[in-house]
Amino acid sequence: MADKKLVEAITAMDVDFAQWYTDVVKKAELVGYTSVKGCVVLKPAGYAIWELIQKQLDAQFKATGVENVYLPVFIPESLLQKEKDHVEGFAPEVAWVTHGGLQPLNERICVRPTSETLFCDFYKDDIQSYRDLPKVYNQWCNVVRWEKETRPFLRSREFLWQEGHTAHATQEEASERTRQMLNVYADFCEKVLAIPVIKGQKTDKEKFAGATETFTIEALMHDGKALQSGTSHNFGDGFAKAFGIQYTDKENKLQYVHQTSWGVSTRLIGAIIMVHGDDSGLKLPPKVAPVQVQIIPIRQQAEGVLDAAYDLQKKLADVNITNPIRVKVDDSDKTPGWKFAECEMRGVPLRIEIGPKDLEAGKCVLVRRDTAEKIECALDDVTTKVPELLETIQKDMLEAARAHRDAHTYSAKDYEEFVKVFEEKSGFVKAMWCGDQACEDKIKEELAVTSRCMPFEQEQIADTCVCCGKKAQKMVYWGKAY
Amino acid sequence: MADKKLVEAITAMDVDFAQWYTDVVKKAELVGYTSVKGCVVLKPAGYAIWELIQKQLDAQFKATGVENVYLPVFIPESLLQKEKDHVEGFAPEVAWVTHGGLQPLNERICVRPTSETLFCDFYKDDIQSYRDLPKVYNQWCNVVRWEKETRPFLRSREFLWQEGHTAHATQEEASERTRQMLNVYADFCEKVLAIPVIKGQKTDKEKFAGATETFTIEALMHDGKALQSGTSHNFGDGFAKAFGIQYTDKENKLQYVHQTSWGVSTRLIGAIIMVHGDDSGLKLPPKVAPVQVQIIPIRQQAEGVLDAAYDLQKKLADVNITNPIRVKVDDSDKTPGWKFAECEMRGVPLRIEIGPKDLEAGKCVLVRRDTAEKIECALDDVTTKVPELLETIQKDMLEAARAHRDAHTYSAKDYEEFVKVFEEKSGFVKAMWCGDQACEDKIKEELAVTSRCMPFEQEQIADTCVCCGKKAQKMVYWGKAY
Repeated sequence: MADKKLVEAITAMDVDFAQWYTDVVKKAELVGYTSVKGCVVLKPAGYAIWELIQKQLDAQFKATGVENVYLPVFIPESLLQKEKDHVEGFAPEVAWVTHGGLQPLNERICVRPTSETLFCDFYKDDIQSYRDLPKVYNQWCNVVRWEKETRPFLRSREFLWQEGHTAHATQEEASERTRQMLNVYADFCEKVLAIPVIKGQKTDKEKFAGATETFTIEALMHDGKALQSGTSHNFGDGFAKAFGIQYTDKENKLQYVHQTSWGVSTRLIGAIIMVHGDDSGLKLPPKVAPVQVQIIPIRQQAEGVLDAAYDLQKKLADVNITNPIRVKVDDSDKTPGWKFAECEMRGVPLRIEIGPKDLEAGKCVLVRRDTAEKIECALDDVTTKVPELLETIQKDMLEAARAHRDAHTYSAKDYEEFVKVFEEKSGFVKAMWCGDQACEDKIKEELAVTSRCMPFEQEQIADTCVCCGKKAQKMVYWGKAY
Repeated sequence: MADKKLVEAITAMDVDFAQWYTDVVKKAELVGYTSVKGCVVLKPAGYAIWELIQKQLDAQFKATGVENVYLPVFIPESLLQKEKDHVEGFAPEVAWVTHGGLQPLNERICVRPTSETLFCDFYKDDIQSYRDLPKVYNQWCNVVRWEKETRPFLRSREFLWQEGHTAHATQEEASERTRQMLNVYADFCEKVLAIPVIKGQKTDKEKFAGATETFTIEALMHDGKALQSGTSHNFGDGFAKAFGIQYTDKENKLQYVHQTSWGVSTRLIGAIIMVHGDDSGLKLPPKVAPVQVQIIPIRQQAEGVLDAAYDLQKKLADVNITNPIRVKVDDSDKTPGWKFAECEMRGVPLRIEIGPKDLEAGKCVLVRRDTAEKIECALDDVTTKVPELLETIQKDMLEAARAHRDAHTYSAKDYEEFVKVFEEKSGFVKAMWCGDQACEDKIKEELAVTSRCMPFEQEQIADTCVCCGKKAQKMVYWGKAY
């Protein structure tokens, strides 16, 4: 009974995907609430995923020469206004501080929505000579955007992210770094989060305020909606000219620097939920699972059962000293059935059942969260079998997500087909585009569909724009998006 | 010439300690500036120290059952006002957000100066039954206090810290956790930062706004001033009553929880600078040194020198796979003299000099930053000698700091002695106190000296209060403080 309750409390995905999402976020205890409107609490189970993302992504950043820094949370209004496109993009959605203590401020300051302007203000003094370049800095921090409608992880007034900001001597170098970081993100999504992504360039309409080029990774959620999961921007020398960031080159001439920025956020946790989850709850890829293996003793009062469980835990924790398996024993006084359901809800990749009969037979049962497959395993083999299985689960989850994405990727040659596919299906639609923003505007207005990206891997779906019928320039991934 | 310049640019400690501090912070490239008044940039060399502090302290927290979470950066005014003492303590120094985007807010919100009120608001719903207790949560985040006078690391409008917030079923458990975390901090300061601290309790005058007891660790800086380096507060059930945080106990009765909070901040970096530094710059204890060993090739154009340096680097990096030595080669085109000075300025604990003559003799020279001692070492012995030396340096730095602290700790039996010692010396002064705040007020007004703490290790310096001559209750550490 109790076991069922826990699961019944979740709305089925197919009935109401949005409600399913909210239920999982709550029942898996990822998020909590306070009186602060539009903001959430990241509870231990949610924050631990972010810690694992941070740790692994940060290591990959550092391997490419990134150094971490920390810049102020505040931006004076005059600073935010220095780059015209940028301020237009962000001013409508920032939180303004007008009083410090009991005194009104001379100039109001906003809580950073992103830190391009701060990095520019810092670089303007910190960069003098070609010897000071490149600067490849990153910060892990909170940012604030005053959103009207919010959803945990996907859109909230405050969120956690990393923002890389680099400055280079040449346009080529900046351009290369923009693409390099996009590749780091794409690899990370595939190899760590088990989420396949489309890499491509944003259209001018969708690019970042102040950028010359914006690149994106786009993932497809279980409900067929797209999620922009990471972006990398090339600023050329636009910000450098607005802020006066110049360096003396080897010939002793003053040159402007070329800049980039790139970021991913806690939104990635939303992607994990919506790509992998099912009607039993969360499904975590082993590499970002705070608990990778949960040992559940059956008839734990029986002699030797708990000892065997702890023994197994210790053995597994010791398999790999540089990257220990994260393993727990659930020795609480709940029923095994309740523990199974809870373990599924929280997305633990592998559970181990061990009871008196298993002990007698010198074995235990391994149960995969991704496939529900049950595998008998001799106790002596656990330390080799479990690490293997975790790797298999990681790989299989990526393949399952890729298969789902591919099965929900369509193409359309003309507007009639395009409209029809969005009426009948949900997913990515590949279609040609003339390059004119008017067509994007029309599609957005009529179908609530946006251009997700011009993928690096172009195909020739047709010769003409899916919207206006003029000569096509680019194949675009279109979709409804979060 | 160039080598000298770098060093000459620092003011000597004995000439002007405050200026020395500012010079080190800047020359060691720990901090940078932007247009945001009262806030600083943590540059890579500064932020990397914080990362090492975070990593090691976080592991110690987790070993005691702490779980990390993240709560909103904003606190609505009504929430801040719920606990009377607390709001009085913090309201005068918070930054107020009054507009979100283009709209004025219905209720103004402040940027968190600390998060007791948010945790209470969260716990009030999250805690229902005794099964939900204890909650032992912590967050690593930024906080804002609208300070008028600011100094990097010591006092700034925004700083980074961790704040632990716990809720317990009983007063005993809360009291135990308060002391446990103080001990974690004290151990961390001694074993990781090589800073000896005095553990004790704050007087009522100096305790945290809303706490029943505040415990502190106090460290002595090189100039004889004290630095409060970490605090741990016991709130009893005061906040629980103000916020209505109740749980149902095993007998099905409603009870209030008992709470604690505890924190350390980037101020610890200020302590590292002021406890260990000298006229050549920063001196980092190996455990928090972003670069522990710097290899400086001499005549690096000579055949084999650079190769030998890289080879040494690789060997050292591979000595310990779970905790690799952080080792760099300075292969820049600066002179060796310049590199030595820079390496000293940045506080690298150990430098290795290797040149053609060393290579021929199959040796290199190890130079300790803490003692300037030069040690010849056979190349074959480097992988055993260097880890040993790093441990020795770590230990010796603690002992040196302890010796300095002890040599600058005085005692005074009466007010005449007390005044004299503060006129002639600088350091901690142990003296008796009657327990009356009037004496603390008088001492603060007349001597700008505050009670640092009532140490756990009490001594009987005299029978009467150093100020008023009445019967003494406690021995107190007094000092001028940052």
